[in-house]
Amino acid sequence: MDELLAGFEAGEPRALARAISRCESGRGADLIRAIYPRTGRALSVGLTGPPGVGKSTLSAALVAHLRRLGKTVGVISVDPSSPFSHGALLGDRIRLAEHFTDPGVFIRSMASRGHLGGVAGATADAASLMDAFGMDVVLIETVGVGQSEIEIAEIADTTLVALQPGSGDSVQVLKAGILEIADVFVVNKSDHPMALQLQREIRSMMEMLNYQGWIPELVATQAIAGTGVDKLWEAILRHGAWLRESGALVEKRRAAFAHRVRQLALGTLEGQVEAYVASLPAGLDPYAAAAAVLRHFGVDEGATAPGNVRPGGTLRATVKGL
Amino acid sequence: MDELLAGFEAGEPRALARAISRCESGRGADLIRAIYPRTGRALSVGLTGPPGVGKSTLSAALVAHLRRLGKTVGVISVDPSSPFSHGALLGDRIRLAEHFTDPGVFIRSMASRGHLGGVAGATADAASLMDAFGMDVVLIETVGVGQSEIEIAEIADTTLVALQPGSGDSVQVLKAGILEIADVFVVNKSDHPMALQLQREIRSMMEMLNYQGWIPELVATQAIAGTGVDKLWEAILRHGAWLRESGALVEKRRAAFAHRVRQLALGTLEGQVEAYVASLPAGLDPYAAAAAVLRHFGVDEGATAPGNVRPGGTLRATVKGL
Repeated sequence: MDELLAGFEAGEPRALARAISRCESGRGADLIRAIYPRTGRALSVGLTGPPGVGKSTLSAALVAHLRRLGKTVGVISVDPSSPFSHGALLGDRIRLAEHFTDPGVFIRSMASRGHLGGVAGATADAASLMDAFGMDVVLIETVGVGQSEIEIAEIADTTLVALQPGSGDSVQVLKAGILEIADVFVVNKSDHPMALQLQREIRSMMEMLNYQGWIPELVATQAIAGTGVDKLWEAILRHGAWLRESGALVEKRRAAFAHRVRQLALGTLEGQVEAYVASLPAGLDPYAAAAAVLRHFGVDEGATAPGNVRPGGTLRATVKGL
Repeated sequence: MDELLAGFEAGEPRALARAISRCESGRGADLIRAIYPRTGRALSVGLTGPPGVGKSTLSAALVAHLRRLGKTVGVISVDPSSPFSHGALLGDRIRLAEHFTDPGVFIRSMASRGHLGGVAGATADAASLMDAFGMDVVLIETVGVGQSEIEIAEIADTTLVALQPGSGDSVQVLKAGILEIADVFVVNKSDHPMALQLQREIRSMMEMLNYQGWIPELVATQAIAGTGVDKLWEAILRHGAWLRESGALVEKRRAAFAHRVRQLALGTLEGQVEAYVASLPAGLDPYAAAAAVLRHFGVDEGATAPGNVRPGGTLRATVKGL
């Protein structure tokens, strides 16, 4: 642990890699506690979208652009845990391979499950580590399946939602919630004949959403040729400036912190609840059983009534580096 | 409440409808406790698959077939909470409308969110109510977005996964986990030229999965014409017979009960954790904050180590009607 921290502080990429592995295996608490005071400087950018949209190519193009600007970048690629995703994973790695020997870039693939706390667990740990390690930008790429692409918006400062024209899927059939989380829409493969139509569809969808504060930008890219990636970075910077100036960044990082703590605590509570449920006597109905579980954790049974749940509240927890 | 129960016991569909509404608004605990002793007789069938596959048409065809066999059916249609889904919802209702005046059929649309416990909350309550009301089969239809189509397998006796040929999505890009939950695969729109290819794809995917016990059946249907629906029902019955004879039904219903209790308890705990996180003092790192939350709920901080979580354990809780 001390040796690992020493290597980490000396800026050794191998120490960063080992630190992330430690967090992935659920033994990262002490490490995160040690490095946490140095986090909060990096800009974290989430990138999500349906499969096949070219997220990895977009990541690679964004990394290349940031390197030309002299910025260091950490990339976290969150893979679904399905046994059928290994082909896609390999493809991602190949596209990012040109950056493997650049010390200003650190790339890490992570499974989206298996660790308590899901994306907000090990992924947030990895993002904290890259941040403390000194990366200017931490890019978190999630495939658009499952819960992870919604959760990304909870932990990243800026969320990019990438879509592609002519994919057969119109904007209407997109996964519920994915449009709502976009700070910047990216229409990739902008050379496609349907690209303008997709942009129109997104704009008319945006009119149906009642945006408060930031109104998402829409950027067209052709990531494979690097086209539009400079505009995308400018849009990210504009969103970052808006976050800081409006005070939304403080609020967003508070919420991200609370989300992360909640997921960590609930991950453990889930296991404990499961074990306790297994020990309940026979003959209970589900509500009586749930009430018994809640009494065990010192929560009043009456709390099952929705009115007694306080999802809001004032958060006084720490917000870093703002 | 007493009046509602009296109406319910007298077999009044309006009382069933009101009972489900009560559960949807989170006030169903007493009701479920009262009717729970009469549950466990219905066969519960989950139906899921990607959008556009024809799940509602398939539901309607299955309902028509069951009515011809003299069986009563409750249908629960779980809709995503996205504001963009109302069009599809209306379509579903129209397809099922021919059964609206049949007293042997009870159809209910439910939102997939909003109530503590998600699908396993209000949906499981509605299924219990339909079961106690005397429906022979409870069909739970979920759209293939979000977490709900995986959760359906946790609460239904038999899970159908519907796929359609030539949808552009090959089996490879299906949402992670959806293939693993199928007890019966349904290739709908079997008149499509690509139907045989899809069946081959499913079979070769199945070879990659290491099935223990039941090996999923594959049925081709053309729901709009009613073709193949008899074969589908026979496959469901074969799975039901296997569940009973192998002892898997007892195990499955135990697990469903535990899942439901867990979701109910965690739904409340989540709100409590959220409120407590909001009250934490400033300056904590995420792990220190999570440990403080866990101490508050009487759980040892050391429990955050994965080794201390017991996800298995022996379940002694009640299993009904077997």
